[in-house]
Amino acid sequence: MNTAIFYHAGCPVCLNAEQGIINAIDTTQFTVETVHLGEQANRIAEAKAFGVQSVPALVLNHQVFHINFGASINDLA
Amino acid sequence: MNTAIFYHAGCPVCLNAEQGIINAIDTTQFTVETVHLGEQANRIAEAKAFGVQSVPALVLNHQVFHINFGASINDLA
Repeated sequence: MNTAIFYHAGCPVCLNAEQGIINAIDTTQFTVETVHLGEQANRIAEAKAFGVQSVPALVLNHQVFHINFGASINDLA
Repeated sequence: MNTAIFYHAGCPVCLNAEQGIINAIDTTQFTVETVHLGEQANRIAEAKAFGVQSVPALVLNHQVFHINFGASINDLA
Protein backbone atom coordinates (compact mmCIF):
# COMPACT_ATOMS: atom_id res chain seq x y z
CA MET A 1 0.00 0.00 0.00
CA ASN A 2 1.19 3.51 -0.74
CA THR A 3 1.18 6.08 2.03
CA ALA A 4 -0.10 9.63 1.96
CA ILE A 5 0.52 11.88 4.96
CA PHE A 6 -1.14 15.26 5.03
CA TYR A 7 0.58 17.68 7.42
CA HIS A 8 -1.32 20.77 8.45
CA ALA A 9 -1.70 23.22 11.30
CA GLY A 10 -5.42 23.85 11.38
CA CYS A 11 -5.15 27.06 9.38
CA PRO A 12 -7.89 28.01 6.89
CA VAL A 13 -5.60 27.31 3.92
CA CYS A 14 -4.81 23.92 5.47
CA LEU A 15 -8.43 22.93 5.99
CA ASN A 16 -9.30 24.02 2.49
CA ALA A 17 -6.52 21.87 1.05
CA GLU A 18 -7.47 18.96 3.26
CA GLN A 19 -11.05 18.97 2.07
CA GLY A 20 -10.05 19.31 -1.56
CA ILE A 21 -6.97 17.19 -1.96
CA ILE A 22 -7.42 14.50 0.65
CA ASN A 23 -10.90 13.70 -0.53
CA ALA A 24 -9.62 13.31 -4.08
CA ILE A 25 -6.99 10.71 -3.21
CA ASP A 26 -7.58 7.18 -4.34
CA THR A 27 -7.92 5.29 -1.06
CA THR A 28 -7.73 1.96 -2.84
CA GLN A 29 -4.08 2.87 -3.59
CA PHE A 30 -3.17 5.00 -0.58
CA THR A 31 -3.43 4.81 3.17
CA VAL A 32 -4.14 8.40 4.13
CA GLU A 33 -3.06 9.90 7.44
CA THR A 34 -3.71 13.48 8.55
CA VAL A 35 -1.34 15.04 11.08
CA HIS A 36 -2.08 18.34 12.84
CA LEU A 37 1.39 19.61 13.71
CA GLY A 38 -0.02 22.19 16.09
CA GLU A 39 -1.45 19.40 18.21
CA GLN A 40 1.24 16.79 17.48
CA ALA A 41 4.39 18.86 17.79
CA ASN A 42 6.35 15.67 18.39
CA ARG A 43 5.95 14.92 14.68
CA ILE A 44 7.46 18.18 13.42
CA ALA A 45 10.92 16.61 13.25
CA GLU A 46 9.53 13.77 11.14
CA ALA A 47 7.89 16.24 8.76
CA LYS A 48 11.10 18.24 8.45
CA ALA A 49 13.01 15.04 7.74
CA PHE A 50 10.71 14.43 4.74
CA GLY A 51 11.56 17.95 3.55
CA VAL A 52 8.36 19.68 4.59
CA GLN A 53 9.03 23.43 4.72
CA SER A 54 5.49 24.74 5.07
CA VAL A 55 1.98 23.51 5.67
CA PRO A 56 -0.26 22.30 4.23
CA ALA A 57 1.95 19.65 2.69
CA LEU A 58 1.21 16.24 1.29
CA VAL A 59 3.85 13.52 1.46
CA LEU A 60 3.22 10.71 -0.99
CA ASN A 61 5.62 7.83 -0.47
CA HIS A 62 8.29 10.19 0.97
CA GLN A 63 7.85 12.76 -1.81
CA VAL A 64 6.82 16.21 -0.55
CA PHE A 65 4.25 18.39 -2.25
CA HIS A 66 3.67 21.81 -0.70
CA ILE A 67 0.10 22.82 -1.43
CA ASN A 68 -0.59 26.54 -1.41
CA PHE A 69 0.89 28.22 1.67
CA GLY A 70 -0.52 28.33 5.16
CA ALA A 71 2.44 28.64 7.51
CA SER A 72 6.14 27.93 7.65
CA ILE A 73 7.00 24.80 9.59
CA ASN A 74 9.56 26.85 11.52
CA ASP A 75 6.73 28.89 12.98
CA LEU A 76 4.99 25.82 14.44
CA ALA A 77 7.54 24.63 16.95
CA MET B 1 -18.39 13.57 -12.17
CA ASN B 2 -15.91 15.88 -10.51
CA THR B 3 -13.23 17.50 -12.64
CA ALA B 4 -9.52 17.76 -11.98
CA ILE B 5 -7.38 19.87 -14.29
CA PHE B 6 -3.64 19.77 -13.87
CA TYR B 7 -1.89 22.79 -15.42
CA HIS B 8 1.81 22.56 -15.99
CA ALA B 9 4.56 23.81 -18.27
CA GLY B 10 6.75 20.79 -18.73
CA CYS B 11 9.22 21.87 -16.04
CA PRO B 12 10.90 19.26 -13.81
CA VAL B 13 8.88 20.39 -10.77
CA CYS B 14 5.74 20.06 -12.91
CA LEU B 15 6.50 16.56 -14.13
CA ASN B 16 7.34 15.47 -10.63
CA ALA B 17 4.03 16.77 -9.32
CA GLU B 18 2.16 15.24 -12.23
CA GLN B 19 3.55 11.80 -11.56
CA GLY B 20 2.92 12.04 -7.84
CA ILE B 21 -0.36 13.85 -7.49
CA ILE B 22 -2.19 12.92 -10.66
CA ASN B 23 -1.55 9.24 -10.18
CA ALA B 24 -2.95 9.47 -6.64
CA ILE B 25 -6.29 10.96 -7.68
CA ASP B 26 -9.33 8.76 -7.45
CA THR B 27 -10.41 8.43 -11.07
CA THR B 28 -13.71 6.87 -10.06
CA GLN B 29 -14.59 10.31 -8.63
CA PHE B 30 -12.67 12.64 -10.95
CA THR B 31 -12.20 13.13 -14.65
CA VAL B 32 -8.56 14.16 -14.90
CA GLU B 33 -7.24 16.44 -17.63
CA THR B 34 -3.63 17.53 -18.01
CA VAL B 35 -2.90 20.81 -19.78
CA HIS B 36 0.59 21.85 -20.87
CA LEU B 37 0.33 25.63 -20.96
CA GLY B 38 3.57 25.93 -22.90
CA GLU B 39 1.99 24.00 -25.75
CA GLN B 40 -1.58 25.18 -25.23
CA ALA B 41 -1.07 28.88 -24.66
CA ASN B 42 -4.68 29.48 -25.65
CA ARG B 43 -5.69 28.02 -22.29
CA ILE B 44 -3.60 30.39 -20.16
CA ALA B 45 -6.53 32.80 -19.86
CA GLU B 46 -8.76 29.97 -18.62
CA ALA B 47 -6.17 28.98 -16.02
CA LYS B 48 -5.83 32.59 -14.84
CA ALA B 49 -9.61 32.85 -14.59
CA PHE B 50 -9.55 29.92 -12.15
CA GLY B 51 -6.97 31.82 -10.12
CA VAL B 52 -3.87 29.89 -11.18
CA GLN B 53 -0.81 32.02 -10.39
CA SER B 54 1.93 29.47 -10.93
CA VAL B 55 2.47 25.98 -12.26
CA PRO B 56 2.13 23.20 -11.44
CA ALA B 57 -1.40 23.77 -10.23
CA LEU B 58 -4.30 21.44 -9.71
CA VAL B 59 -7.85 22.74 -10.12
CA LEU B 60 -10.41 20.51 -8.43
CA ASN B 61 -13.94 21.63 -9.25
CA HIS B 62 -12.81 25.25 -9.75
CA GLN B 63 -10.72 25.30 -6.56
CA VAL B 64 -7.02 26.01 -7.16
CA PHE B 65 -4.19 24.24 -5.40
CA HIS B 66 -0.68 25.43 -6.24
CA ILE B 67 1.67 22.50 -5.80
CA ASN B 68 5.29 23.40 -5.11
CA PHE B 69 6.56 26.05 -7.51
CA GLY B 70 7.76 25.58 -11.07
CA ALA B 71 7.07 28.86 -12.86
CA SER B 72 4.85 31.90 -12.63
CA ILE B 73 1.97 31.82 -15.09
CA ASN B 74 2.94 35.34 -16.15
CA ASP B 75 6.20 33.96 -17.51
CA LEU B 76 4.43 31.50 -19.82
CA ALA B 77 2.60 33.82 -22.18
